[in-house]
Amino acid sequence: MRYFEYKQVLVFRKDLQLSKGKVAAQAGHAAVLAAQEAHIHHRAWWEAWFYEGQRKIAVKVPTEKELHELEEAAEDLGLPHALVVDAGLTEIPEGTVTCLGIGPAPAEIMDRLTGKLQLL
Amino acid sequence: MRYFEYKQVLVFRKDLQLSKGKVAAQAGHAAVLAAQEAHIHHRAWWEAWFYEGQRKIAVKVPTEKELHELEEAAEDLGLPHALVVDAGLTEIPEGTVTCLGIGPAPAEIMDRLTGKLQLL
Repeated sequence: MRYFEYKQVLVFRKDLQLSKGKVAAQAGHAAVLAAQEAHIHHRAWWEAWFYEGQRKIAVKVPTEKELHELEEAAEDLGLPHALVVDAGLTEIPEGTVTCLGIGPAPAEIMDRLTGKLQLL
Repeated sequence: MRYFEYKQVLVFRKDLQLSKGKVAAQAGHAAVLAAQEAHIHHRAWWEAWFYEGQRKIAVKVPTEKELHELEEAAEDLGLPHALVVDAGLTEIPEGTVTCLGIGPAPAEIMDRLTGKLQLL
């Protein structure tokens, strides 16, 4: 199995029952927003990740509370991250926090924060 | 309902039975790769889309054949696009074409190409 030095993790809430279409759009938001944070603040991480193949992993946490805890932990570790708040055009109310993108960042730092989370 | 001037469309294959986690990761790939194409070749579109709220829509086509037809049509229209080929670490064989990201680009051009496709 190929080893990646950098990764991005997309964290979803288990307590929202999103359709595959909604998951896809929210994942796209999280990936683009967190990658843009890396592009601005950690360009070397972004480039290494982008040209390495952009490893992405989707995981889940029980509720919005754990998303915010992860967001704070990412902030404390200096990792690029972006919380996705849905515009509420379909399925869920406007302002619903749907997911959190963290990274790209070095896999060893990412794993400390997200390595034990359940796969989506 | 809010109107968006720019949009990005993520096109999936109906004939692959992907888990939500796989859909999320592939959507992230398509969104980041196509957005990067726009960032390089259509910076004004990218900026307008990014600051407008990054409208994303996930749709589906029957098979890989239609993905390639859309890819060619996007190429002919000069739209930023990226075909996602999975590294095959989980669920599906290496080299499987999973989805296609098109845009960000002006909604009126995107709609001509993708407006009649079924939502994912």
